Amino acid sequence: MGLNLPKTIEWVNGRVRMIKQLLLPYKLEYIETDDPFRVAEAIKRMEIRGAPAIGVAAAFGMALAALKVQERGLKEALNVLERTAEMFKETRPTAVNLFWAVNRMMAVARSATSLEELVKSMISEAEKIALEDEKANRRIGELGSRLLSDGDTVVTICNAGSLATTYYGTATAPIYVAKEKGINVHVIAMETRPYLQGSRLTAFELKLAGIPVSVITDNQIGVIMEKEKVDIVFVGADRVVGDGHVINKIGTYPLALVAKEHGVPFYVAAPTSTIDLEHNIEQIVIERRPSSEAAELFGRRLCPEGVDYIYYAFDITPPRLVTGIITERGIAYPPYPKSLKELV
Amino acid sequence: MGLNLPKTIEWVNGRVRMIKQLLLPYKLEYIETDDPFRVAEAIKRMEIRGAPAIGVAAAFGMALAALKVQERGLKEALNVLERTAEMFKETRPTAVNLFWAVNRMMAVARSATSLEELVKSMISEAEKIALEDEKANRRIGELGSRLLSDGDTVVTICNAGSLATTYYGTATAPIYVAKEKGINVHVIAMETRPYLQGSRLTAFELKLAGIPVSVITDNQIGVIMEKEKVDIVFVGADRVVGDGHVINKIGTYPLALVAKEHGVPFYVAAPTSTIDLEHNIEQIVIERRPSSEAAELFGRRLCPEGVDYIYYAFDITPPRLVTGIITERGIAYPPYPKSLKELV
Repeated sequence: MGLNLPKTIEWVNGRVRMIKQLLLPYKLEYIETDDPFRVAEAIKRMEIRGAPAIGVAAAFGMALAALKVQERGLKEALNVLERTAEMFKETRPTAVNLFWAVNRMMAVARSATSLEELVKSMISEAEKIALEDEKANRRIGELGSRLLSDGDTVVTICNAGSLATTYYGTATAPIYVAKEKGINVHVIAMETRPYLQGSRLTAFELKLAGIPVSVITDNQIGVIMEKEKVDIVFVGADRVVGDGHVINKIGTYPLALVAKEHGVPFYVAAPTSTIDLEHNIEQIVIERRPSSEAAELFGRRLCPEGVDYIYYAFDITPPRLVTGIITERGIAYPPYPKSLKELV
Repeated sequence: MGLNLPKTIEWVNGRVRMIKQLLLPYKLEYIETDDPFRVAEAIKRMEIRGAPAIGVAAAFGMALAALKVQERGLKEALNVLERTAEMFKETRPTAVNLFWAVNRMMAVARSATSLEELVKSMISEAEKIALEDEKANRRIGELGSRLLSDGDTVVTICNAGSLATTYYGTATAPIYVAKEKGINVHVIAMETRPYLQGSRLTAFELKLAGIPVSVITDNQIGVIMEKEKVDIVFVGADRVVGDGHVINKIGTYPLALVAKEHGVPFYVAAPTSTIDLEHNIEQIVIERRPSSEAAELFGRRLCPEGVDYIYYAFDITPPRLVTGIITERGIAYPPYPKSLKELV
């Protein structure tokens, strides 16, 4: 396809190979391991992050565990795998994809009638999970790319990029597919405090793929829409509620407000697995994370001792600010209660 | 008054004493000097910053220069002072207050008929400039404090605080005066990337003054208004155009949009010297600063090499988002073309 975009995570000859994301954007290095515990550690330490990528990592981790139990009896092997599954579920307790992937792997394990079948089917299931993720992203990219014209400027936030998934990302997929088609766009990435996933990760992967990218501090979103040509916004989502409320990285809501104010279309790109038809927005608790994660950067404290940094990790964008929600099954438009239900 | 708030800059027995702001919030140290060149250096290196504080520093610097030329003839002394004035004007070329203060000092110098008078009147003029600043802030504080009730939560951005002025600040003045009156509020300071004046300076001075303060990353402004009780917003201004457009630190415009969305009153606090009746908003150029100032923090690069950080220093808030503009002469309410003209 001509895009110089490395795979975030893949299965290579009985081993897992994944980008060491904590070193980005300074160094592109890989973890390569046949040890399921090393994969769990990578998830815990955020060497790999992004809900879809974590799910795939856990699935591959379970496949590695299957390889390790080959010499045991089937029942004992299953017992070991159950414990391994629990270990993976505890790495990032709030990641929905993680539970989903691990449960899917265990269902396959439990239905195996021989050790040989168990190993083979678990590896094949993990590869399937990874491939499904990549395919969904490519389909989102195909649909989203039709919204782009040559010379457009796209704003995005955080990293809903290739690095958050197996490959191609969600919010970035339309940009990559457009590039394959010869539609060239310029991207403005919001840096996304406190972890700077925009400046560290999104800028890194777009640059590698040969897509022109600039970064802004998060508070420049207003002046950018006033002073620069911005054609469209693509963001990812951590959860989309059935009525169209979008829960995503902090800063998404102000971004959507400014976009609305300036008549810039605001699209959410997310697989249908992100859509939650079971809860309403009042039931969703927005995660608050430890103050120190926002108050410190590179080991330096950003405010006086004794002053508290508030750290909500996500915010809520109301449906009326959302132009459309791009999924692998089509683009949902308002009214969302109807269109989202039809897609899922 | 019971507030433990240090003077940002003052004249002490023929010397200038000012807080070394680059060390904040880690250490509270002072520069004390009788050398006008040291004052100029402090302005240039941003050891003192904030438009009103810079104006006062330059005025005191000119007074120090007057003390140095005492042994010369009057004409030669004036020549030296003219050159010193030019030097001060070059320290921060875009600071309006700097030019205004230096010109005021030179007008006094030129009207002196003896060296003794020159020195005396220049010191007295500099002290007057400082006192006027402090008085204007206290008056802004008095008017603004009437908008506050005990238990209120105030959001502010950047540092339009005591540290940006001689004393008491502009956006912070209502909070300090309220405290004197026994009205206690909680402040949420936006950290204000890239220089973090909110987390470094505003949090520092509020804490010192005994006012409870929390900090948020700039992108949390949406979730804060959704999830927390916010009663009022106070911001400063770098310039207020006659029709009510407010030019202030980046992030002010998204903050105003979110406040409007949530029905939270949004007030600008600024002395009448900030009001510009001569230009309209189309004529104002928003300063863009070097990419590296945003792309690096604590000597670390935040994005890959070769990726550009965009850095607009200010944004523009339209009048319809502004509830009122608090000046030392009264609070202007819409329609601003009429109310601002009446105040100035």
